[in-house]
Amino acid sequence: MPSSTSDRPQRLRVQNFFVSRDGVAAGEDQSLERPFGHVDPGKLAAWAGATASWPNRTDPGGSRGLDDRIVRDFTHNIGAEIMGSHKFSPFRGPWENEDWTGWWGDDPPFHTPVFVLTHHTRPSFSLGDTTFHFLEAGPGRALAVAQEAADGKDVRLGGGVTTVLEFIAADLVDELHIAVAPPEIGSGLRLWDSPADLEDRYEHESVLGPSGTEHHFFWR
Amino acid sequence: MPSSTSDRPQRLRVQNFFVSRDGVAAGEDQSLERPFGHVDPGKLAAWAGATASWPNRTDPGGSRGLDDRIVRDFTHNIGAEIMGSHKFSPFRGPWENEDWTGWWGDDPPFHTPVFVLTHHTRPSFSLGDTTFHFLEAGPGRALAVAQEAADGKDVRLGGGVTTVLEFIAADLVDELHIAVAPPEIGSGLRLWDSPADLEDRYEHESVLGPSGTEHHFFWR
Repeated sequence: MPSSTSDRPQRLRVQNFFVSRDGVAAGEDQSLERPFGHVDPGKLAAWAGATASWPNRTDPGGSRGLDDRIVRDFTHNIGAEIMGSHKFSPFRGPWENEDWTGWWGDDPPFHTPVFVLTHHTRPSFSLGDTTFHFLEAGPGRALAVAQEAADGKDVRLGGGVTTVLEFIAADLVDELHIAVAPPEIGSGLRLWDSPADLEDRYEHESVLGPSGTEHHFFWR
Repeated sequence: MPSSTSDRPQRLRVQNFFVSRDGVAAGEDQSLERPFGHVDPGKLAAWAGATASWPNRTDPGGSRGLDDRIVRDFTHNIGAEIMGSHKFSPFRGPWENEDWTGWWGDDPPFHTPVFVLTHHTRPSFSLGDTTFHFLEAGPGRALAVAQEAADGKDVRLGGGVTTVLEFIAADLVDELHIAVAPPEIGSGLRLWDSPADLEDRYEHESVLGPSGTEHHFFWR
């Protein structure tokens, strides 16, 4: 049994991406106080927060079943992440200063190089063993840069939803894991109308976990 | 999201343990030609062999859904394995010679120290980045030795079924993932009469995967 020992090419993977029953991944009106805008991310991420492997867990315990296997797969064979600028920060336009270092505190959960796609680049910096780089590039070149940094491993596409859709449209995403939480949200930024939207491009499998979260896997 | 960064104690885990619908894990009359005795292991392992991450895969491709996530979790945070002598070899009694190096070829899938419990010890040897040690010890001392070697990571209890049952009886196993394949086998070495047998000791969750394999997770 593995680590997926690969002489295989480096893949671009979306992992543990949270949406609501009706496909909403984030709200509008993102702000410093509300990184997901009007959407309460707790509603989408509760299943992950209940697992033993959730990195923000403060008490011991937590479940060690299906959801935990999926949460702890987040880092499996990942050598770099690409994220959109809205995942990195709530600010738009040029940086007023460079005090903002992301939402994740002193030890971000990435533990690899992270490439933030932005029109407003700034110097790279490190927090824990994560290094953030700022890159003005389209999806194709961004992927090439991230693959080079990933040292033979796969690259994670971290979001947000606009960035995921842009890379799917560019036909660069090799696999996705989307976790559909039970609540409906109504309005917001949508990943899809339904999971079937991706079936023309990908193999698709889904499983309803004991927590009520439906895990969708797509690959090619 | 993780690697389960642990200040938590090292856990003893059974991972990707295959049984039939009726709880049979191996046949009787193990031999060099038939490591699982009269049981065809292909019947129990087909779901794993169909995944992209299966280490014995010779062609590219393979599924990348639920079963794949579980297969590739095999090495997650594992620093050592303990196995019974029947998992290591079909021979009984003193070694006639030390030519036998296991069923796994030149690059066994463990990639850690492996402790083979046996009354017939022999010198340690390495294949790839797996090192086999031979240890005459009961479950408690075997676990202590393996934990020391695991360098802070968890220990996998690899089987066979008799060894798993012995460690459960000694109350040393912290979690199990058991994959129940659809076929019934009838006779053989059983892990259980039913998964409910373990519910007095463990939290229990199960999920029926798209491949027809039912994954059972137990933890404490």
